[in-house]
Amino acid sequence: MIVDEAEAKEGYVKAEVHNQITTIEFYHPKGNALPSRLLAKLTQEIDHASHDDSTNVILLRSVQHEVFCSGAYFNELMEIKNETEATRFFMGFANVINAMRKCSKLIVARIHGKSVGGGVGLAAAADYAIALEGADVRLSELSIGIGPYVIAPALIRKMGLSASQIAIDAHLWRNSDWARRKGLYAELHPNKESMEESIERLLGSLSKNSNAANSALKRMLWEGCENWDQLLAQRAATTGKLLMQEQTQSFLGGFNKTVVF
Amino acid sequence: MIVDEAEAKEGYVKAEVHNQITTIEFYHPKGNALPSRLLAKLTQEIDHASHDDSTNVILLRSVQHEVFCSGAYFNELMEIKNETEATRFFMGFANVINAMRKCSKLIVARIHGKSVGGGVGLAAAADYAIALEGADVRLSELSIGIGPYVIAPALIRKMGLSASQIAIDAHLWRNSDWARRKGLYAELHPNKESMEESIERLLGSLSKNSNAANSALKRMLWEGCENWDQLLAQRAATTGKLLMQEQTQSFLGGFNKTVVF
Amino acid sequence: MIVDEAEAKEGYVKAEVHNQITTIEFYHPKGNALPSRLLAKLTQEIDHASHDDSTNVILLRSVQHEVFCSGAYFNELMEIKNETEATRFFMGFANVINAMRKCSKLIVARIHGKSVGGGVGLAAAADYAIALEGADVRLSELSIGIGPYVIAPALIRKMGLSASQIAIDAHLWRNSDWARRKGLYAELHPNKESMEESIERLLGSLSKNSNAANSALKRMLWEGCENWDQLLAQRAATTGKLLMQEQTQSFLGGFNKTVVF
Repeated sequence: MIVDEAEAKEGYVKAEVHNQITTIEFYHPKGNALPSRLLAKLTQEIDHASHDDSTNVILLRSVQHEVFCSGAYFNELMEIKNETEATRFFMGFANVINAMRKCSKLIVARIHGKSVGGGVGLAAAADYAIALEGADVRLSELSIGIGPYVIAPALIRKMGLSASQIAIDAHLWRNSDWARRKGLYAELHPNKESMEESIERLLGSLSKNSNAANSALKRMLWEGCENWDQLLAQRAATTGKLLMQEQTQSFLGGFNKTVVF
Repeated sequence: MIVDEAEAKEGYVKAEVHNQITTIEFYHPKGNALPSRLLAKLTQEIDHASHDDSTNVILLRSVQHEVFCSGAYFNELMEIKNETEATRFFMGFANVINAMRKCSKLIVARIHGKSVGGGVGLAAAADYAIALEGADVRLSELSIGIGPYVIAPALIRKMGLSASQIAIDAHLWRNSDWARRKGLYAELHPNKESMEESIERLLGSLSKNSNAANSALKRMLWEGCENWDQLLAQRAATTGKLLMQEQTQSFLGGFNKTVVF
Repeated sequence: MIVDEAEAKEGYVKAEVHNQITTIEFYHPKGNALPSRLLAKLTQEIDHASHDDSTNVILLRSVQHEVFCSGAYFNELMEIKNETEATRFFMGFANVINAMRKCSKLIVARIHGKSVGGGVGLAAAADYAIALEGADVRLSELSIGIGPYVIAPALIRKMGLSASQIAIDAHLWRNSDWARRKGLYAELHPNKESMEESIERLLGSLSKNSNAANSALKRMLWEGCENWDQLLAQRAATTGKLLMQEQTQSFLGGFNKTVVF
C-alpha cells in the first residue's frame, strides 16, 4: 500500500478491497505497537468492511518488522495519569476485539512474526490465523503489575485454559509451534512462500463462497460471546485500576522506555 | 453381519448384541454416505440399545470402503425442492447426534477410514473414538454454500474451537494425526490389528463395569448439552434455508453428482 | 521440612513461608495417598495461605515416592459402611479443589511422579503444573464401579473433553507427554534439575509481582466456576451412592487391599 512520510513516522492503518477481499494493514515504527489512535482506526476499518457489500472476507496483516504486533504502545501507557484515562486506553483493544467478533465477515490473520500482549489478542480474535515459524508469543502484562484481562476471553475461547500458561508465566516466550498446537494458529508455515500461498488459496476460496454461508458460519463461531461488550469493558476497567496502583506505577517508573522486546 | 442383496445395493443399518455389547453397523455403497432412511434407522437402533438391559456399551462402526462415512447422501440432497424438505433432511444427522447424546450407554466408535461432513459429526458425538491411520477428516459444507451447523456443537464440545479450522477451510483434508491431537480421536492406531485389539480390550472392560457407573459417567460427560434438541433443530433450519438460496442451488447444479470425495 | 516418627508413619501435610512463597507439602507412606484427615489439613493450609498477607504465591508438592499422589486412601474407602459416610469421604477432595479454586493466590504444583484419581484432580486444580517426565496419569474410578465425578470439572476445565478419555478407559495409563499436550501440565521436564530450576524461576518472579495483579489474574482464571461448591457436593453424593451399590461393593471385596498401583 502507498505510504507517505508522516505515516511512516507515526504508523498507520490502511484498507483496500480487491476481488471481494478487504486487506487491512497496520504499521508502527516501534515494533507495530498500537497507540489508541491506530486502535480506533483499526476498529473503524473492521466495522467498515463488515458492512461493505463488495467484501466477502478480510485479511488482517502488519508490515515490515519481524514482529506481527508488540501490543499496546508503551510510551502512551507510561503517560497515563488517572484511572479514567487508563480505562479508556485499555478500551482500545477491547473495541478492536469486539469489532472483530461482531464483524459479519470471516477474518483471516497473517501472523508473520512475534506478538506480545494485545498482539496475541488480535491473533486470537481472528477467525483463522496463518502464521510463520518464529511467530512466538508472550503475555508480559503480569510482570508489570497489570494482566491480560481484556484479551483473555479471546485467548481462552480459542486455546482453552492453556492460555493461562502464558498469562501466568509473563517472562517466557512460547514458540510458534506451541501456539499452533494450542489452537491459536490454524496453520504454521516454515517459510514465507508457503505462508503466502496458503493465505492466497484460502482467501480465494472464501471470497468465492456464498456471502450468506460465510456470515452464518461467522455468527455460529461466535455464539455465546454476546456479553463481550460488557465483559471486555469491565476487563478494561480492572486493568485501568491495577495500572494506577502505586506498586505498578513504581514498576513502570523503573522501565527503560525503549525496551518493548 | 448377514446382508442380503437389496441391503448391499441400498445400504443398511444393523445391530447385534453379544456379551453386553451392542454393535451397530452401517453401510452404503456410495462411501457409506447416509440417506435419510439410514439416519432414521441409526437413530432408532441407538435409542433401542439405550433402553436395552442386556447392553452395557455400544460399538458404532461401518463396513468395507476406506471411508468411515462420507456424510449426508449427496444425491438425496440434490433433489430437495424446498426449505421444509431441506430442514427435514438436515434433521437426520441432528436426530442421530441427539440419540447418541441421550443414549444411556457409552458409545465407542471405530473409525477405520476417512470422514466428511456429517461423518465427522458421528466421530465427534461418540464418547470414545478409536481410529486407524488414514482416517482423515474434512468439512466441505461451506464450499457448497451451506455450513456444518448441525454437527458443529458436537465438534466444538470435543475439539474446542479448533473445529472452526476445518469448518472455514472447506477444501483441505486434515489428517488423522491432526484429528487425534485435537481430541476428536481418543486413540489412533498404525494398523488394523492394533485398532481391533484396543477396541476389544476397551469393550471388554466397559461391558463388565457396573452399568450404573457407566451410565452416570455418560450423563456427566454430556452435562450442559441439555438444549441440543432445540439447538440442533435450529441449526437444521439454518442449513435448510441456506441450501435453498439461489447461489447455493447454482453451486449444486454445477456439481458432478458422482463426486463425493 | 522437619518430620517426626508419627508423621513418617501416618503421613502429614505441612506448610512453610519463605520470601512470599508458601510451600505446602504432603506425604503418605502408601504412595502419597490422601486419607480424609490429610485432605482436611490440606484444605486448611490452602485456606490459611489464601488469607496470609506475607504469601504471594503457593507451591504444592509431595515427597519421596515416584508417585505424586495416588488419590483417595483406599483402605479408608474400603471401610465405608453407608452412603452418608461415603459422601463425606468424597467431599474430602471436593473441599481441597474448592479451596484451591477460591484461594486468592496462584498455585504452582510440582508433579514429580505419577498420579491416580484424586491426585490427577490436584494437578488439574493447580493454576500452573510443572511436571517431570514419567508423571503419568490414570483415572481408575470407573473400573471399581464409581467414577471421577468430583474431580472431572477441574479436569475438563483445563483439558477440555479430552479428560473423558482417561475417565472412560480406566485401565490405561496416559503418559506425561499426553498430559502436557492436553494442557494438564504447563511444563514437562526431562530431569529433576531442569524442573526445579523452572519452578524456582517462576516462583521467584510471581512472588515479586504485585499481589493485586496476581490475585486479579487468579480470579479471572476461575470465572464461571462459582457454582462448584454445589456442583462438587452433588458429585460427591453421586459417587457416594455408586460406592454403596451392591455390584461396587462386591468389586471392592475382590480387591487386594494393598494394591493401589
